[in-house]
Amino acid sequence: MAGFRLAPRLESDSVFLTDWPLCQLRLMDDARFPWLILVPRREGLEEWTELSAQDTGILSAEIARAGGGLAQMFNPRKLNVGALGNIVRQMHVHVIARFETDAGWPGPVWGQGTRTAYADAERDRLCTELLRRLG
Amino acid sequence: MAGFRLAPRLESDSVFLTDWPLCQLRLMDDARFPWLILVPRREGLEEWTELSAQDTGILSAEIARAGGGLAQMFNPRKLNVGALGNIVRQMHVHVIARFETDAGWPGPVWGQGTRTAYADAERDRLCTELLRRLG
Repeated sequence: MAGFRLAPRLESDSVFLTDWPLCQLRLMDDARFPWLILVPRREGLEEWTELSAQDTGILSAEIARAGGGLAQMFNPRKLNVGALGNIVRQMHVHVIARFETDAGWPGPVWGQGTRTAYADAERDRLCTELLRRLG
Repeated sequence: MAGFRLAPRLESDSVFLTDWPLCQLRLMDDARFPWLILVPRREGLEEWTELSAQDTGILSAEIARAGGGLAQMFNPRKLNVGALGNIVRQMHVHVIARFETDAGWPGPVWGQGTRTAYADAERDRLCTELLRRLG
């Protein structure tokens, strides 16, 4: 994907897992929620409506794939999917495992409280396990 | 779609616009934000991961169609797309036109403030215009 560059805020708040056919898959570095981010590797993309017809279908399948991995690993009460972009314009899709006991339930995670980075060992362990199931 | 029934909370908070191939398209009755809701007409569906491969693609295309209509009508700063379901379990996808001047910017709309129903004439006018562009 010539020219694809990740927005600095996505780079700093999340860690690389792998590249899927359309999206770069990343783990949000927030120990409060099991939280994946999918970033379509298309330079300049901001809106769902700007995806090609083909990419529109692939994105939805990759959301399901990410959600399926989280569901298998964490058995959440609910998956949350969101593409907002009010702050970081580069298109990215959040896929989050939610629990009735989590820090934001039943509200959305965005704009709630403060991100809590994983301890290094925990982040490494989680990335390894996610890649085993999703890579 | 045998057996499809709308959750009472979706029924009371939004109004019917039309049925697309997969989703029922509804207008959220909240004058603070131009806000569409897509409800896949599949009984018992709660999660993105439960959609068939075919429906997964159709849903994404219908999100783009809804977003395109809002963008054309309102020229928003950003579209927001979200499938949460922490409160209403029936799968539904929000597609919302956002502005830097709106009541929740740059945060998400969910869980922010109180829904403000449209005046009847305004709701009717908006539904007519949305159907003209999206029907």
